[in-house]
Amino acid sequence: MENVIELPVRTLPVRTLMGSGPSEIDPRVLQALAQPPIGHLDPAFVGLMDEVKDLLRYAFQTENRLTFPVSGPGSAGMETCFTNLLEAGDKVVIARNGVFGQRMAEMATRLGAEVVTIDEEWGQPVDPQKLEAALESNPDTKVVGFVHAETSTGALSDARLLAGIAQRYGCLTVVDTVTSLSGSPLYVDDWGLDAVYSGAQKCLSCVPGIAPVTISDRALEKINQRQTPVSTWFHDIGLIEGYWSESSQRSYHHTAPVNSIFALAESLRLVRQEGLERAWERHREISQTLVTGLDRLGLEMMVDDASIRLPQLSVVNVPQGIDEAAVRTRLLQDEGIEISAGLGPLAGKVWRIGLMGHSCRSENVERLLDALERVLTDLPVASSCSG
Amino acid sequence: MENVIELPVRTLPVRTLMGSGPSEIDPRVLQALAQPPIGHLDPAFVGLMDEVKDLLRYAFQTENRLTFPVSGPGSAGMETCFTNLLEAGDKVVIARNGVFGQRMAEMATRLGAEVVTIDEEWGQPVDPQKLEAALESNPDTKVVGFVHAETSTGALSDARLLAGIAQRYGCLTVVDTVTSLSGSPLYVDDWGLDAVYSGAQKCLSCVPGIAPVTISDRALEKINQRQTPVSTWFHDIGLIEGYWSESSQRSYHHTAPVNSIFALAESLRLVRQEGLERAWERHREISQTLVTGLDRLGLEMMVDDASIRLPQLSVVNVPQGIDEAAVRTRLLQDEGIEISAGLGPLAGKVWRIGLMGHSCRSENVERLLDALERVLTDLPVASSCSG
Repeated sequence: MENVIELPVRTLPVRTLMGSGPSEIDPRVLQALAQPPIGHLDPAFVGLMDEVKDLLRYAFQTENRLTFPVSGPGSAGMETCFTNLLEAGDKVVIARNGVFGQRMAEMATRLGAEVVTIDEEWGQPVDPQKLEAALESNPDTKVVGFVHAETSTGALSDARLLAGIAQRYGCLTVVDTVTSLSGSPLYVDDWGLDAVYSGAQKCLSCVPGIAPVTISDRALEKINQRQTPVSTWFHDIGLIEGYWSESSQRSYHHTAPVNSIFALAESLRLVRQEGLERAWERHREISQTLVTGLDRLGLEMMVDDASIRLPQLSVVNVPQGIDEAAVRTRLLQDEGIEISAGLGPLAGKVWRIGLMGHSCRSENVERLLDALERVLTDLPVASSCSG
Repeated sequence: MENVIELPVRTLPVRTLMGSGPSEIDPRVLQALAQPPIGHLDPAFVGLMDEVKDLLRYAFQTENRLTFPVSGPGSAGMETCFTNLLEAGDKVVIARNGVFGQRMAEMATRLGAEVVTIDEEWGQPVDPQKLEAALESNPDTKVVGFVHAETSTGALSDARLLAGIAQRYGCLTVVDTVTSLSGSPLYVDDWGLDAVYSGAQKCLSCVPGIAPVTISDRALEKINQRQTPVSTWFHDIGLIEGYWSESSQRSYHHTAPVNSIFALAESLRLVRQEGLERAWERHREISQTLVTGLDRLGLEMMVDDASIRLPQLSVVNVPQGIDEAAVRTRLLQDEGIEISAGLGPLAGKVWRIGLMGHSCRSENVERLLDALERVLTDLPVASSCSG
């Protein structure tokens, strides 16, 4: 059909990753990732699965038996929680204060649930009083969904308080911890969270495409009492549970992404070795250096109140008259640094600067502040030159 | 909370992978996998996505615009095809001649489709006459689903013939090419296949957890005319299409598994460089060496007829009186070679020996034949010693 051909070599650039994720990856994790694969039914792999479950329980601060990584990105983790917990007609209250709360509402709607939303301005945390009022008016609500750390706005909500309210009204909670896990304090058991999902490419600093999930026994009880089968075979926790269960009862479901699991295990070992409290403290301290430096450059944080501001994701107002996209492009192309744009109503108005996991290092903060100073000083000149 | 701790080092074994997948991975692909990640919205990554789409079109032998990898394992690819193509009440004919045809029927049932099955003994290809008869009796059928290369039985079905029949009855086809892609001749456009999914960890010899999919314009038309939204947000092709579309119109959906895409691109470049016909020929030749060697050891192939036998997956009858699990364990633990067990009704009765992609090398065949000879000769002695 054809001769043996040589394709052009594509060289990927090396970037300093300070956007909304993926974050940078420790070389130890990349090394684990690149180990030759072994079979997903190999006893050595099954042993690794057990280790991963234990390490995830530590990261989530939970004893939940059903704690495992979904073989897909964070939004597959979100889908796994809602698809299993909701049946058509179930009433669910969803808090929308950014992109991911909105996504929760979309998923629940597609599943045929009766969705009640409580809305908050982007950049604000979820208002506990609004949740209370919504549950008061909707006593037949079964599930409450909210985002712990909104990646689109940099706002942290009080998951403990919100879950406490949900519990008082007899509701289960679905909680998005994609950006909070290992970056902000999170205690799944102490706070009584029920179906919690995360992503690997934020503060765990692992490869994207794998989503840690933990499910409480209370949530499992509702799942086990479903009147209708889960509509997606791939997301059915009843089947996935068999695949991730103890060795002797394991049943085949799909082929786990073995190399990603190698990497996840190593990234979780690094989290375990540093210790969660130290990791949270590191995110706080280094983000404070960033905020101070940005202030020196005359840049303001969108979320003013430091108590609700994510340390791992700083959302910065774009100064008037600055072409925000041009700044990002210059940072990426001339300085090799990635920061993220605003999403939805914040598009064009903010930058999102991530300091997540392995990216959260003083040298990255210094590099970005230096680069930003150069770019912001240069920009008008560069624009008029090129125009 | 705790002191910095050192966790025990877990050393993974090195295996010769000759099971049903994952297959071994070329060192070039592992090197690509372990490159430091870049952002999923980085122009350099978007360029790589375009290259991956082109290389996938080559592998599938299609011009389909909508050709992309699903961010999940092969069964997420299966789910993507059925979830988008079927609406509740749609009639679908599904051929079951192994595990994966059965899985298709389960998915379609969960989606509320009216499922008509045609059944074949495991190890047999799908019978075109049965398909014709089923469509004759069910003229309102909209979709036909079948597996090209059944990983559970090693049987190859005539996808061209089956798709031709489906077309004559005005039906779209969903075709599982998880094990066939790049191992057996496959011409998506020439054969008129509509929604085709595969896996990366078989003959592409990439990491598991990413599922190439290609969708014909005919299938897209049905999807675009849906009366009801797709029930899973994560699998909605309307949304995924925006993420994988040409650069200028890209819209955010989820975070692509960037490292897996680095690896997929490299594995597809290797396929492109070797050329599909050469790859198919290599699988045929080397599997013939295996079959000859197994015959010399007195082992018989379950699928007798070579014309319907997969070269990339040989299913071998376990001789009477042999403890099949003990043989696999000895091969794995003493010889470092993985082969697979039988599934479903074939459990305990067969071994499945894979020669897929990078695993399909003469040295692997020799290593396995030598090892099998040792193990089969030794086994009774070993058993009586240990007993």
